[in-house]
Amino acid sequence: MKALILFGHGARDARWREPFDRLKEKWVAQRSNVLVGLAFLELMEPSLEMAVSSLVSKGAKEITVLPVFFGQGGHLRNDFPTLLAACREKFPQITLSTTPAVGEDEAVLQSIIEYATRVI
Amino acid sequence: MKALILFGHGARDARWREPFDRLKEKWVAQRSNVLVGLAFLELMEPSLEMAVSSLVSKGAKEITVLPVFFGQGGHLRNDFPTLLAACREKFPQITLSTTPAVGEDEAVLQSIIEYATRVI
Repeated sequence: MKALILFGHGARDARWREPFDRLKEKWVAQRSNVLVGLAFLELMEPSLEMAVSSLVSKGAKEITVLPVFFGQGGHLRNDFPTLLAACREKFPQITLSTTPAVGEDEAVLQSIIEYATRVI
Repeated sequence: MKALILFGHGARDARWREPFDRLKEKWVAQRSNVLVGLAFLELMEPSLEMAVSSLVSKGAKEITVLPVFFGQGGHLRNDFPTLLAACREKFPQITLSTTPAVGEDEAVLQSIIEYATRVI
């Protein structure tokens, strides 16, 4: 079974995660055939390993981790591969893949331009 | 003259700003009648004050600051209003307004869901 992890930075303020919760709800509403989980790099749970473990316990065999970040800096270039490698070691029977950050996608950037056009 | 500031977090890695540079280029290509600038909260320049100053020198009178953040945590709830208040004090002749973060917009969230659907 396939699964998606929406991977965000995390923050001290619990309200920071609201858009991530909404993303998860949207996925469940639109793509209920693919399991989904959230994970955070720091300051917030679940961690990536906790999220992978939870999805594996629900039957996931192929998990794609999608970084919900704009820019690709040290977090995505250094910390994220380390976390991903640890998960691959811990769950060798699972195919764990990843994608470019959402800020790399032209359609996501275009949606931000359209939002700006509506609110300016 | 109206202007838009795309306000991001900033990072140590210069490559982190690439999506922000692309957003600015897209705005220039699509909405050349509204001036645009980037600004960063920390670790990267220009600061919000530098960006406002630059746009004012180009003739901007009404500036909208759009937070290119997903979640609204301490940065947007505490640090950002302080920076904005300092800019309003320094440029009292300019109308400085702000909008909810891009992660609050349903169409932006939907574009992320569609990106995930394409790459999973």
